[in-house]
Amino acid sequence: MKAARFHGRKDIRIDDIPEPQLRPGAVAIDIAWCGICGTDLHEYLEGPIFISAEGRPHPLTHEHVPVTMGHEFSGTITTLGDGITDLTVGDNVVVEPYFVCGECAPCRAGNYNLCTKMGFIGLAGGGGGLSEKIVVDRRWVHPIGDIPLDQAALIEPLAVGHHAFVRSGAKAGDTAFIGGGGPIGLLLAAVLKAEGITVIMSEPGAARRDIAFSTGVAHHVIDPTVEDAVAKVHELTGGVGADVGFECSSVNVVLDQLFDAVRPAGVIVNVSIWSKPAQIDMQKLVLKEIDLRGTIAYAHDHPATIKLVQDGRVDLEPFITDRIDLDRLVQDGFATLIDHKDTAVKIIVQPEVSNVS
Amino acid sequence: MKAARFHGRKDIRIDDIPEPQLRPGAVAIDIAWCGICGTDLHEYLEGPIFISAEGRPHPLTHEHVPVTMGHEFSGTITTLGDGITDLTVGDNVVVEPYFVCGECAPCRAGNYNLCTKMGFIGLAGGGGGLSEKIVVDRRWVHPIGDIPLDQAALIEPLAVGHHAFVRSGAKAGDTAFIGGGGPIGLLLAAVLKAEGITVIMSEPGAARRDIAFSTGVAHHVIDPTVEDAVAKVHELTGGVGADVGFECSSVNVVLDQLFDAVRPAGVIVNVSIWSKPAQIDMQKLVLKEIDLRGTIAYAHDHPATIKLVQDGRVDLEPFITDRIDLDRLVQDGFATLIDHKDTAVKIIVQPEVSNVS
Repeated sequence: MKAARFHGRKDIRIDDIPEPQLRPGAVAIDIAWCGICGTDLHEYLEGPIFISAEGRPHPLTHEHVPVTMGHEFSGTITTLGDGITDLTVGDNVVVEPYFVCGECAPCRAGNYNLCTKMGFIGLAGGGGGLSEKIVVDRRWVHPIGDIPLDQAALIEPLAVGHHAFVRSGAKAGDTAFIGGGGPIGLLLAAVLKAEGITVIMSEPGAARRDIAFSTGVAHHVIDPTVEDAVAKVHELTGGVGADVGFECSSVNVVLDQLFDAVRPAGVIVNVSIWSKPAQIDMQKLVLKEIDLRGTIAYAHDHPATIKLVQDGRVDLEPFITDRIDLDRLVQDGFATLIDHKDTAVKIIVQPEVSNVS
Repeated sequence: MKAARFHGRKDIRIDDIPEPQLRPGAVAIDIAWCGICGTDLHEYLEGPIFISAEGRPHPLTHEHVPVTMGHEFSGTITTLGDGITDLTVGDNVVVEPYFVCGECAPCRAGNYNLCTKMGFIGLAGGGGGLSEKIVVDRRWVHPIGDIPLDQAALIEPLAVGHHAFVRSGAKAGDTAFIGGGGPIGLLLAAVLKAEGITVIMSEPGAARRDIAFSTGVAHHVIDPTVEDAVAKVHELTGGVGADVGFECSSVNVVLDQLFDAVRPAGVIVNVSIWSKPAQIDMQKLVLKEIDLRGTIAYAHDHPATIKLVQDGRVDLEPFITDRIDLDRLVQDGFATLIDHKDTAVKIIVQPEVSNVS
């Protein structure tokens, strides 16, 4: 079968590899669509980062480069492994793309996203969504009912937003300030709005602000290059400040704004990945009793995330800005996201050879 | 009456001032003992910081320098203002030394320690504990039963430790790592131990480590100059890490150690006052889903704090390292704390003129 494999920095190839073998307790899935994630771009440009390098096999998969990429995918079950009785061939599904040890303290506490050996399908080996087929342990497979398979490829990043929402403790009626309107900021906004939270978003990129407007996920969209974002948040909240803030930019100025924009006893969730240390004004953290919380991926979020889409409370269609075939992954996928990151939100990839034009 | 008043930096005088007048809804207190706080030292050396400077009266007290100092005090009720029926003349009490507006969003939410106009007795005007008498609104007066009045002067800083404990969410059976064994670190340790939490303290000062040993408030005391504090915490917690961490030093290296010493999904409470920005490794906050929480002073903590002392679960006596008379405040109080900060934990001051030798 065809699979997009990472061989090294700026070296992703569409290889012909053997189909994965079904095993007891797992299901075989024909992949329908797979999104390209910011993490995939980082691996392409600067990797291997999370990808297991040569001589450094992942402790759970025991695989290293070349590895198949892709962790945001949907598909259809084609075969059930021994012991699987609660799923049906033909079910459309998404996958929580984890490998976890099940034995460490975080796993035992239910925080499997914090597993000390944690790996991701599409990065750590074990196949990936940027291929035709995959075999996945039952635990990680979530049926999606009649959600269209293309939109379903966005459930994984939507679950990232859902987990950030859960970490924030925000509740209906609250006001949230999101610093940064990239793909995760936008999908997080969609979750928050669906949960009855007023969303104020600050984003310097005009195209991204347009998407926030056109998708309707933010109630207020601020251009911080012409407007004082902190003053605007205070104006919109009657001088009180936002109940929760979300850092979705990995820019220190934005983090600073969040400390000023949230109310006393407010919460700031850092959603973005930082490649450098952050500087924080500890006096504000102390005198306002702010909680600064980290969030990574998701745990126990997929059922609620899928339901948001099934119930029509989140419409994922507007976030799909392009659909491409697997053979054009690098030219039309990675290159577009790198060169036009302001206008491209989510590009999804179809691995079926029959559809390649 | 005699009162120690702040006139300016390094200018604290024992003045003779009029006695405060009783008002409805308040009680008159003869002050027994008042502790000297690190904040008082900062004001003396670098102030006015929190003290209301000339031309900058506090919005609630409308007072400015000279102001009477002292906010860690105990005393005995001498007169009840109109309307006070639930206290008795002769009751020994401590005071939660706040002025709050009662109208801002934090006040309305019950977070009166975060009041946007918040001021402290002993800093913002309204009298102070380093004087003979004070008049305080009923709301802030807490009876202490038979707790000795000298030990009771330490209930205020103990309440700071109690609030940090509450903010951490720690529960009996948890393990806490405290970075820094100054007065607040030690009193916080006393609260945590009383609440059934295993306490690991790291402190570079030998004298302070001795106090942690002799008072028995820490189960394990680490000298970080000769031992790897993070490795020791992991060794003591079976490789898992501490459930909660407390930053009590305002030293960035200690904050870094806390990020490594707490377990995934752990909590770090910053208790100390920082005069500069802090640098944090955001990747650790994210990948371990750490909560970094600010804590300031106390709110609703005094009843539980007083009960810890009444029940004998915290013994405050060992933390009193000296007792002095008000007339010797600067020479024997401030000077000792500045010159011998490692050996002096809490110096308490007796304002009664009759006792001055």
